[in-house]
Amino acid sequence: MHLLSEREWLAYRQKNKDRARMLISCPDRAGIVAAVSHFLFEQGANIVQSDQYTTDPETGRFFMRIEFDVVNLAERYESIKESFRPVAESYAMEWSLVEANRRKKMAIFVSKEDHCLLELLWLWKSGALHADIEVVISNHPDMKETVESFGIPYRHIPVVKDRKAEAEEAQLAAVPDNVDLLVLARYMQILSPRFLQVYPMQIINIHHSFLPAFVGAKPYEQAYQRGVKLIGATAHYVTEELDAGPIIEQDVQRVTHQEDVETLKQLGRQVERTVLARAVGWHLEDRVLVYGNKTIVFP
Amino acid sequence: MHLLSEREWLAYRQKNKDRARMLISCPDRAGIVAAVSHFLFEQGANIVQSDQYTTDPETGRFFMRIEFDVVNLAERYESIKESFRPVAESYAMEWSLVEANRRKKMAIFVSKEDHCLLELLWLWKSGALHADIEVVISNHPDMKETVESFGIPYRHIPVVKDRKAEAEEAQLAAVPDNVDLLVLARYMQILSPRFLQVYPMQIINIHHSFLPAFVGAKPYEQAYQRGVKLIGATAHYVTEELDAGPIIEQDVQRVTHQEDVETLKQLGRQVERTVLARAVGWHLEDRVLVYGNKTIVFP
Amino acid sequence: MHLLSEREWLAYRQKNKDRARMLISCPDRAGIVAAVSHFLFEQGANIVQSDQYTTDPETGRFFMRIEFDVVNLAERYESIKESFRPVAESYAMEWSLVEANRRKKMAIFVSKEDHCLLELLWLWKSGALHADIEVVISNHPDMKETVESFGIPYRHIPVVKDRKAEAEEAQLAAVPDNVDLLVLARYMQILSPRFLQVYPMQIINIHHSFLPAFVGAKPYEQAYQRGVKLIGATAHYVTEELDAGPIIEQDVQRVTHQEDVETLKQLGRQVERTVLARAVGWHLEDRVLVYGNKTIVFP
Amino acid sequence: MHLLSEREWLAYRQKNKDRARMLISCPDRAGIVAAVSHFLFEQGANIVQSDQYTTDPETGRFFMRIEFDVVNLAERYESIKESFRPVAESYAMEWSLVEANRRKKMAIFVSKEDHCLLELLWLWKSGALHADIEVVISNHPDMKETVESFGIPYRHIPVVKDRKAEAEEAQLAAVPDNVDLLVLARYMQILSPRFLQVYPMQIINIHHSFLPAFVGAKPYEQAYQRGVKLIGATAHYVTEELDAGPIIEQDVQRVTHQEDVETLKQLGRQVERTVLARAVGWHLEDRVLVYGNKTIVFP
Repeated sequence: MHLLSEREWLAYRQKNKDRARMLISCPDRAGIVAAVSHFLFEQGANIVQSDQYTTDPETGRFFMRIEFDVVNLAERYESIKESFRPVAESYAMEWSLVEANRRKKMAIFVSKEDHCLLELLWLWKSGALHADIEVVISNHPDMKETVESFGIPYRHIPVVKDRKAEAEEAQLAAVPDNVDLLVLARYMQILSPRFLQVYPMQIINIHHSFLPAFVGAKPYEQAYQRGVKLIGATAHYVTEELDAGPIIEQDVQRVTHQEDVETLKQLGRQVERTVLARAVGWHLEDRVLVYGNKTIVFP
Repeated sequence: MHLLSEREWLAYRQKNKDRARMLISCPDRAGIVAAVSHFLFEQGANIVQSDQYTTDPETGRFFMRIEFDVVNLAERYESIKESFRPVAESYAMEWSLVEANRRKKMAIFVSKEDHCLLELLWLWKSGALHADIEVVISNHPDMKETVESFGIPYRHIPVVKDRKAEAEEAQLAAVPDNVDLLVLARYMQILSPRFLQVYPMQIINIHHSFLPAFVGAKPYEQAYQRGVKLIGATAHYVTEELDAGPIIEQDVQRVTHQEDVETLKQLGRQVERTVLARAVGWHLEDRVLVYGNKTIVFP
Repeated sequence: MHLLSEREWLAYRQKNKDRARMLISCPDRAGIVAAVSHFLFEQGANIVQSDQYTTDPETGRFFMRIEFDVVNLAERYESIKESFRPVAESYAMEWSLVEANRRKKMAIFVSKEDHCLLELLWLWKSGALHADIEVVISNHPDMKETVESFGIPYRHIPVVKDRKAEAEEAQLAAVPDNVDLLVLARYMQILSPRFLQVYPMQIINIHHSFLPAFVGAKPYEQAYQRGVKLIGATAHYVTEELDAGPIIEQDVQRVTHQEDVETLKQLGRQVERTVLARAVGWHLEDRVLVYGNKTIVFP
Repeated sequence: MHLLSEREWLAYRQKNKDRARMLISCPDRAGIVAAVSHFLFEQGANIVQSDQYTTDPETGRFFMRIEFDVVNLAERYESIKESFRPVAESYAMEWSLVEANRRKKMAIFVSKEDHCLLELLWLWKSGALHADIEVVISNHPDMKETVESFGIPYRHIPVVKDRKAEAEEAQLAAVPDNVDLLVLARYMQILSPRFLQVYPMQIINIHHSFLPAFVGAKPYEQAYQRGVKLIGATAHYVTEELDAGPIIEQDVQRVTHQEDVETLKQLGRQVERTVLARAVGWHLEDRVLVYGNKTIVFP
């Protein structure tokens, strides 16, 4: 929560000024790492961190995240991309090159419960989230004052039954172009397939249970009835199938027979905000790759 | 795992010689604790530990576990029970009085996977399980040598499809009378309602998943497919509804995209054996009370 | 973080209106529980929760925390205390009777790092801390605006080397009378014995390490140098011996070789704020008893 | 604990038949990864996993662990090493090439407490430790029968005060040549510098505390006196400075005021055996690199 001073912030920017991240996925075969690292060497880059994973060394898919420093990144960004294209093509890569220094843009959706929203706002204010929060959108007016006190615009867009499409239109209009991430911070409305298609694997939801246990509504009530000894939360990308998108992070909290539903919810909020914050942080640092319905996380 | 020396064992028996546990459940109302503690005071007992829980102070059910020392417990055990009867009746109590020093009798059922069985055998040999293991019963011959090397009888009772009833007859005959606990230590056959009725809330099973996620067979395969970030295990009492009996204990282990199904299973075995051992230990020390489909655990 | 609505707040007060907590410590001997519970029964009380602990059933000290409901607590509070006095005397008890509904008063001391302060403010605003924060005192002006935005007075009292006594005078004057708890939420000045004597076992500090490892200053630097694989935090009561007062709570966070000192600190802040919040919550609910240099916590 | 069947064992060997691990450390500079991966590509190798770490991209030291498959590894092992030599020299690398299929040799030292020894024996029997246990050496005769029942030689070498050098001679003679790892599984004698020099960073000890808290003897007694809320264990390489060698792994277990010293020890044994087993497994799979007094673990 430590607020970054101007000096610290400049130091951070300075430190990451020439740092880039390359994300790659392609059919696995011999020579990929050699080709990529040889390319980076030719560019004068110094590899700082590198993670890779293959689903199967013979017939599988290969995933790589590589962080490197290269002098004058900003000026050379486009030319590096251009030069890499032939390498990428020869291995049929899906890939991207990201400047670590470029702040991503995010929007937050929230309903009435504020613990996840507040956690994100605090982390953001403390400098731990490397992103700009462009707007907070809610189907309720409740959080307006709080959000605006952080200097962030708040848009109250009511969602009326049978007129959801209208609300989604307004929401899509309220989200700035080229936003990198939408976070559903306890947003209790289901988004339509049409909405989801605009942001594929760019919407993170926090589900207040340890998925796939207790899918759907009222998971704490379900957990209480079942007498479980741990409650949990799950951060996942949102897909058309409800509560079934790729899981990014999960965690649990021990409970006993003593906890009533209200206390379960209170304990659950702690897990929810922690799990969501971790998932959002990883996404913003390009640490999450999606493969089928699973994630590969290089934390 | 520390093997108790003869001296340590005698010390344990001496220390617990006069220790008793009283377990009570009854409709909650004012005066219960006063009545019980007054009774114990009159008996010259010294309360060592006491735990209680009420589902609701007004209209709920009250649960209590109380440990106390009383001089010459063995001789006075029956007379204490006799004297408590009127107290119990006036509060409509279900109750029991247990001598801490009396070793419970248990039987273990196992199929082919041995990690849970071995954990129990080791804990038992080390003196950490206050029980006698009367017999290990298996539908496979594999563990015979290992079990007998601990000085424990091994009964191989094959379970043939369409002749399960016959096998259960043999199993029931092989379990000594007045056994306090049956542990299904990765026993992969479903027990019939008839069998279960003989041992109500006396059969503990380890389910190799974080129930109610991944009920039924092949939970690690299911977990792998779903891409979860934690795997878990659940120890529960066995009831007629498969995988749905009262949960005693659960725990989890963090996993990543790197783990294949085999590694998930290997990690899972660690959680399974730990969770089962905890549940068995609590049962043997009379720390688990059942209410509806939930447990109250006073650990 | 959930902000209590007026309705929820009234419901809470209503639910706890007649709830009291009795805290007892005395030499252990037979009959204590019977005497206390008989007394409560005579008062028409219904025991809701009861925890006890004895250092040794023969010669030890006995500790008890008992929660009960009694009709018209507010009017009868003094008379119940009066009636209990002879019981207490006959067992040489130290004891207190607390109305659960009475909000405790607390003051917070902070220096420059704000994560612990903010966690307490958020919990407080959400209704999870049952206390009034009377004042925040700091040797720096930095947090003034934030604290005042919560409607809480902020006192900036600089601490100048060689004139500490003067500062402490001002601090003592700034803390309202009958405050129940002082929280050092990353307050980086050492308090004098004279100051500490005013608030015995009423000052909680968060130490940014897993005590007794890395006592004193710069624990994250120490931890980094030593290459530990877990970092932790400790909440403890402040006594004259630096970093050696009774420990209330500790927790840890896994780290690897990858974390530099800055990242250790960032991860550490999460543990610190969680551990401190737990300790403060337990203190406010009268769940912590002190015995010698240890705490007994009935969570 | 699952005993590997002959079939499973062959499958494991087959799967790892052509798998190698390369461990590298050298001054960091641009081009290392490119050089290594280009070399492997030329050898026809397919990289399966790769981890790297640099203490500082500019002036630091670079560490790498790379797993790859290459056809006919066994025949080509020496020629691959030979071909890599010039690459290694041009970057001033310390390096090694390990066949994953080659089982390492280990010896275990133990005194009287058997929980750590048993954990290793069970893991070994279950096939989870990819090593041959050549001998168990003890200063006590107690574990002879148990160890020999696993088919492992047991050497009882008493350690008499003032004649330690003699005992160490016998120990060194009892340990087979070219052993890769010595595990002190609760071996309670201090080894001389002379002994340690024979096995630099090849001796793993389990310390029964959360180092650097409670160094030296009787840590559970120390922890009890200090009233800590977590107890822990530390696995570390043994160096001349007692309890101060590079830490490989640590973990903790929550405790409360209720636990007496004996129970702390019992809980501690669970943490000790888990932590030691993890450290030993990582060492055997070449996942631990040492740098100064710290470890880099690629788990």
